[in-house]
Amino acid sequence: MSTPVLIDCDPGVDDAIALLYALASPELDVRGVTTVAGNTSLTHATRNAARVLDLAAARADLPFVAGLAGPVARPERIPDEPIHGAGGLGGLDLPDSGRAAAEGAPEWLAAQALAAPGALTLVALGPLSNVAAMLAHRPEAGAALREIVVMGGAAHCQGNITPAAEFNFFADPEAARTVLESGLPVRIVGLDVTRAALVPLEEADRLAALPGAAAAAAGTLLRGFALRYGERFGVAAAPVHDALAVTAVADPGLLDYESGSATVECDGAVTRGALVADLRRPERTRAVRVALGVDAARFTRLLADRLAGYGAAPRPPAGT
Amino acid sequence: MSTPVLIDCDPGVDDAIALLYALASPELDVRGVTTVAGNTSLTHATRNAARVLDLAAARADLPFVAGLAGPVARPERIPDEPIHGAGGLGGLDLPDSGRAAAEGAPEWLAAQALAAPGALTLVALGPLSNVAAMLAHRPEAGAALREIVVMGGAAHCQGNITPAAEFNFFADPEAARTVLESGLPVRIVGLDVTRAALVPLEEADRLAALPGAAAAAAGTLLRGFALRYGERFGVAAAPVHDALAVTAVADPGLLDYESGSATVECDGAVTRGALVADLRRPERTRAVRVALGVDAARFTRLLADRLAGYGAAPRPPAGT
Amino acid sequence: MSTPVLIDCDPGVDDAIALLYALASPELDVRGVTTVAGNTSLTHATRNAARVLDLAAARADLPFVAGLAGPVARPERIPDEPIHGAGGLGGLDLPDSGRAAAEGAPEWLAAQALAAPGALTLVALGPLSNVAAMLAHRPEAGAALREIVVMGGAAHCQGNITPAAEFNFFADPEAARTVLESGLPVRIVGLDVTRAALVPLEEADRLAALPGAAAAAAGTLLRGFALRYGERFGVAAAPVHDALAVTAVADPGLLDYESGSATVECDGAVTRGALVADLRRPERTRAVRVALGVDAARFTRLLADRLAGYGAAPRPPAGT
Amino acid sequence: MSTPVLIDCDPGVDDAIALLYALASPELDVRGVTTVAGNTSLTHATRNAARVLDLAAARADLPFVAGLAGPVARPERIPDEPIHGAGGLGGLDLPDSGRAAAEGAPEWLAAQALAAPGALTLVALGPLSNVAAMLAHRPEAGAALREIVVMGGAAHCQGNITPAAEFNFFADPEAARTVLESGLPVRIVGLDVTRAALVPLEEADRLAALPGAAAAAAGTLLRGFALRYGERFGVAAAPVHDALAVTAVADPGLLDYESGSATVECDGAVTRGALVADLRRPERTRAVRVALGVDAARFTRLLADRLAGYGAAPRPPAGT
Repeated sequence: MSTPVLIDCDPGVDDAIALLYALASPELDVRGVTTVAGNTSLTHATRNAARVLDLAAARADLPFVAGLAGPVARPERIPDEPIHGAGGLGGLDLPDSGRAAAEGAPEWLAAQALAAPGALTLVALGPLSNVAAMLAHRPEAGAALREIVVMGGAAHCQGNITPAAEFNFFADPEAARTVLESGLPVRIVGLDVTRAALVPLEEADRLAALPGAAAAAAGTLLRGFALRYGERFGVAAAPVHDALAVTAVADPGLLDYESGSATVECDGAVTRGALVADLRRPERTRAVRVALGVDAARFTRLLADRLAGYGAAPRPPAGT
Repeated sequence: MSTPVLIDCDPGVDDAIALLYALASPELDVRGVTTVAGNTSLTHATRNAARVLDLAAARADLPFVAGLAGPVARPERIPDEPIHGAGGLGGLDLPDSGRAAAEGAPEWLAAQALAAPGALTLVALGPLSNVAAMLAHRPEAGAALREIVVMGGAAHCQGNITPAAEFNFFADPEAARTVLESGLPVRIVGLDVTRAALVPLEEADRLAALPGAAAAAAGTLLRGFALRYGERFGVAAAPVHDALAVTAVADPGLLDYESGSATVECDGAVTRGALVADLRRPERTRAVRVALGVDAARFTRLLADRLAGYGAAPRPPAGT
Repeated sequence: MSTPVLIDCDPGVDDAIALLYALASPELDVRGVTTVAGNTSLTHATRNAARVLDLAAARADLPFVAGLAGPVARPERIPDEPIHGAGGLGGLDLPDSGRAAAEGAPEWLAAQALAAPGALTLVALGPLSNVAAMLAHRPEAGAALREIVVMGGAAHCQGNITPAAEFNFFADPEAARTVLESGLPVRIVGLDVTRAALVPLEEADRLAALPGAAAAAAGTLLRGFALRYGERFGVAAAPVHDALAVTAVADPGLLDYESGSATVECDGAVTRGALVADLRRPERTRAVRVALGVDAARFTRLLADRLAGYGAAPRPPAGT
Repeated sequence: MSTPVLIDCDPGVDDAIALLYALASPELDVRGVTTVAGNTSLTHATRNAARVLDLAAARADLPFVAGLAGPVARPERIPDEPIHGAGGLGGLDLPDSGRAAAEGAPEWLAAQALAAPGALTLVALGPLSNVAAMLAHRPEAGAALREIVVMGGAAHCQGNITPAAEFNFFADPEAARTVLESGLPVRIVGLDVTRAALVPLEEADRLAALPGAAAAAAGTLLRGFALRYGERFGVAAAPVHDALAVTAVADPGLLDYESGSATVECDGAVTRGALVADLRRPERTRAVRVALGVDAARFTRLLADRLAGYGAAPRPPAGT
């Protein structure tokens, strides 16, 4: 049986891999995709998501909705000079898409949750702006979700955007705090595990050589990421943060978790955006699970298998 | 010529007076009313607004849209134990309304602004949650407004919810900061002037004795406010914060302003929600005008005249 | 009967005037002078204080002790590029002094207080670093003081170093918070009154023309301050913040106060250093009195009379 | 050759062990002991230190100076209800000491440093109040120290007083920030290593059974700590944070370090007191070394050997 998911994302290289993985994975039933500013501007994120949906041959009527152009409490637009390369996809040049996004992701997410109480898992791969706005607009929508799986944070390791903070939480700390303090069941897939589940360069090369545009694109993206990571940290291997979060939904045993409560620092002078998890008193609350262990080989194998599937037998561009 | 306005409110006693005033004032053309949590919960605020619209015999198809149930960065629901008396209207018992509110005030406000570029004045009488959410969703909508007139803040006097902060800004400081720092033309009508424009008890009594339900209700609300204020501060007179903000749009010369930049403290230990206006270097920016002087007699006269109009010649309940 | 005072200062132009005033005023019995970084570096402040003591012909054995070179919680040295002109005395060139300062002002202040319980008034004219350090070292010393009179803060008006903060409180907010929250009897003489008690240029000119080096120097300092103030704010008149605080001790009826509690914001993004006084619930605590009214003419007359006294009959350089 | 050290402490069980270790270690030349509020009040900490110095038969004229009774920026006295058991030494009842403490630890530390430039290592085992006050009083004293070795912080693990903060840094965050940002060479021995170097219960028992009051007392203290730790965390073994910091000076190769810059969060809502170390860009600055690895067996052996030495051949109570 497949798990119905809504995917909120800001592609971004690893978002793109995550979308390709999710749409190729029979364990997941993607019910809609929303976009948010983060790795790149909302405009670029939405354009990139459309192109990746095309690449994955997602059905034409898959719900596709744009959301917030910036954080909930500080509405700076995310600049168009993307961290993830020009245009947000590491320079990868995908064909234009005719797929148009609706507007109002927070309202749309709330409506989906309320229409199928207890059924949907929301997988949030970017800043949590859309999710927090959904809770501010329609507090009752949160309780109608089955679970929120979040890529973000660094519980016991250094951050990647500051020494204390991971990018997604730093980009909208107030939103992340709202979600983590909501009391809703939240699973956190952060740098503690994504840094321990790098995809080696040779695996990227193997994918890039496969037939089919989707696998080739994924391979190219991973290869570029691995090389840039190698230059900086001395190991040619790609972190695929967002893909790990999606895989954790598809394969529930992939990660090990500790339970407790968690929040995000919003006021700190040097810790703004830092995940603060209290895992030593789980008797108090167990709403939040933080992933601290990962079977990296299993992740790489799963990811490669699913992505390779594109090349083997390209899905027909199904539709209405 | 009348000024087209959108009114965002959280009735609340003084919001109710402000709505009654606005709908009776030929200088204003009310194009829609949105609601937000603040003086009372969103549910109560929306119910109260509907009843007040009925009382004012507003046309049945006047757009009416509910917005955020709490602040943008901290989604606590506003409690139902209202500061403004049971139900939020100081105990006033108005008939139920059949008027139903649409949902999604931020999106709706953005759509109105974008549909009539440069034409609309947004008058925000509650916490700025809806306005900030509008800017986070659709940054381009702000620039399409003619002006934002805000009731909130205390520039040179003590606050009313903490020594440093006024209620509306304190209730959603991040939203207020977003609006004040937006660079859009904002007019601030805060405690500096609302405390200097109290409506005396005798004026309230005069209104309460007038024929017509609307004037009588307004008089009763003002009378109750004046008595409670008198108990606390020794002068039986009613502050009508929100009505002053609306009147300032109807009568542009009513208040004196200083120009500059302004923001709201969001991080302070004892100053959270405080308005911080920099009025000494207006050469740098003049986007924000802070009202520091008021012709109180003129305000009271205007308010009483318009409210008295309800009694004299009740408008037919126009509509579709 | 004269009031025994300890004066903690950071000369600085208005500190210099304040010292000259205090040493010429029979209502005050100056028992010692301590220095702190603030208007200028500790080195300059100490050197300037020594020269001013000479100018006032203070006795050679008047205790004179240097204190903190920077704030208690952020030990940046105060830069030597002084706000108060080169060297900190507005360019005034006073003769070198042989007066040497002891070290350890916080310990010394504590020892004086404990040696004369209930007798001494501490008049703090600079950042409150020394006073807070005294309380951190010897908490019991605070209760042994009769009163602490502080020049600092802006309760109901704009600050002078930021829109929210006055210089002395901004320069060491944690120290100011410590003193204001100590529960000790504190009198605050801030911008609310010092801006309302400017010394007119003609008064400065009158002093500058008097015989005697001290009056002449005071006149020159005031004249320079008045001219610079005039350029900036359009009125040629000098604020003499520190002198007003000292005069308030000499003439207890000079200022009007409101009582309550007070603190200083240390965490704010835009309000760091802001005085926050809660004057509406004096029933809770009355430890802090904030000056909100001043008889400006009486102040100017007092100040001029005392300073003029130097010229009329120069004190002999008394001492051991 | 032995390393000359000044020890600033707040005994405290592990401070007591650390003092006993230091005074028995020929690699260290203890030139003086200062006390600070922390694990217990200044009064108790000073009394406990005196008793432990007696127990170690420290010479009677060993300089012994009391310092701050609370944090530099928040002068709350540390309560007398001690975390470390009644009186601060886990209930251990040591004889009263006639050893009297001088006052003014910050000034005294500065004087020692300036009198022996480049020679002294300051080992700080409690909140950094005294060290920061020294730097605020006499900024030039810091540069005269050879090194500051600090027990405090948790770089990559959970804190022990909050999820984000370790006790010593939490108890005076502003002081810790001052020291870490000073640019002086600082070595941090925090929970990352002290939690990995627990002394097993059996080792404590072995010490407790040795002849000589000092070894017996140390054994008793360690035994009590190990049992309490065992109740809470399931392993009967004692963390001896402060002793590890002292041992790291005596045996420079005991710990592994990473270099970089570091600070302490002072403003955070949930991260106040958190150590934030930036160890990924050591090219920028290498002033701070953070211990991240420890040879636990070597530590336990060293500690036990030195403490056992007390029983074998008690030092004569040397002195004047």
